[in-house]
Amino acid sequence: MRVGILGGTGPLGRGLALRLADAGAEIVIGSRQAERATEVVAELVRSWPGRRLRIEGVANDSAADADLVVLSTPWEAAVPTAEQLTDALDSKVVVSVANALVRQGREMHALVPPRGSVAAAVQSALPGSLVSAAGHHLPAQTLADLDAPLDEDVLVCADAEAAKAPTMELFATVDGLRPVDAGSLASAAAVEAFTAVLVTVNIRYKAHTTLRLGGLPGREAEPRP
Amino acid sequence: MRVGILGGTGPLGRGLALRLADAGAEIVIGSRQAERATEVVAELVRSWPGRRLRIEGVANDSAADADLVVLSTPWEAAVPTAEQLTDALDSKVVVSVANALVRQGREMHALVPPRGSVAAAVQSALPGSLVSAAGHHLPAQTLADLDAPLDEDVLVCADAEAAKAPTMELFATVDGLRPVDAGSLASAAAVEAFTAVLVTVNIRYKAHTTLRLGGLPGREAEPRP
Repeated sequence: MRVGILGGTGPLGRGLALRLADAGAEIVIGSRQAERATEVVAELVRSWPGRRLRIEGVANDSAADADLVVLSTPWEAAVPTAEQLTDALDSKVVVSVANALVRQGREMHALVPPRGSVAAAVQSALPGSLVSAAGHHLPAQTLADLDAPLDEDVLVCADAEAAKAPTMELFATVDGLRPVDAGSLASAAAVEAFTAVLVTVNIRYKAHTTLRLGGLPGREAEPRP
Repeated sequence: MRVGILGGTGPLGRGLALRLADAGAEIVIGSRQAERATEVVAELVRSWPGRRLRIEGVANDSAADADLVVLSTPWEAAVPTAEQLTDALDSKVVVSVANALVRQGREMHALVPPRGSVAAAVQSALPGSLVSAAGHHLPAQTLADLDAPLDEDVLVCADAEAAKAPTMELFATVDGLRPVDAGSLASAAAVEAFTAVLVTVNIRYKAHTTLRLGGLPGREAEPRP
């Protein structure tokens, strides 16, 4: 599977690219400037020799041609980026990972986007696409260190099953990530906002917290690291 | 310590009363009708013979005389209840546990209260009180079963350290609950809203999910049940 990561040169985009590529996916990192994407990809591949990572750096519009597309720009750029690529993204699964957050002293606050969530705004901008929201709580730094074990639940929201199922399958390919069905895109508002709480806890405890839900039946209870 | 639980006859109020009483606190359950509180307390104490639970049932205004007060009414009643007890609650720690939620088909949605959170509205209604927000994600049914092990993080938000510290100490008395400093009362908006996501996951998986954060340094990593 070929996965495009739009705005993939940022911390979360890099981390996702590395983990998904390490799990066997073919990754296309997109950026507004193709040279920037090429530079970042060269750096990523150089950092992990022997892992046979298939990552390519291109312009956003080329990355939008992939089978599935992750929208990983800064949150203010999510809707404008989507709007420029409406045709390429039509009928495609588009995973929104951005959170509208603002730093306020020693904590992070969630902003309330006009449609409740970034993901809902992206779905409105892309009425012909299958938008899901997922991956908001993943710690970018830990993702980017392929030697670090992961033990994290990935809450996945989408209105269409045709958006949710492929998104859950994508994250399930990464060792240590457990996709959890968190309902429709309406849930994305609370999922995105909760990232602010996790970052605030990180600031308070100088930590990289991960989210795990206990008590899900029929799912293995692995020890937390 | 004497803990008052206003509106404590509901599922979360009962569960909290049982766990805190079992941990040694003296509990006063308040209700709009004292007889209702007396009935519920008789039932709770009868259910757990030999546990020496100190729980009393009274009217809300008497429960507000306790050392620390938990506001556990239905969310619509939180502000009206607080407003009626402004004097009794003055200078006191008031723990807001309510979430503004609405069931929508097979999921739960978070409503956005005009001040962002129920806790912020309570603090506005009680400018002389020390309001904290905590306990939103606790599974009421599991709390109410004193034989069931708990393994849950309790996110605690408050503007004043004099509100936050006693709230964290209170929850820390219960075996299996780990209080986590989640910042100021501004964080309560996302903490409350996230309850909708957990309930949605519960509906989807027929589960009683619990929230645990991994990666907090210097805190023991207990296995999840």
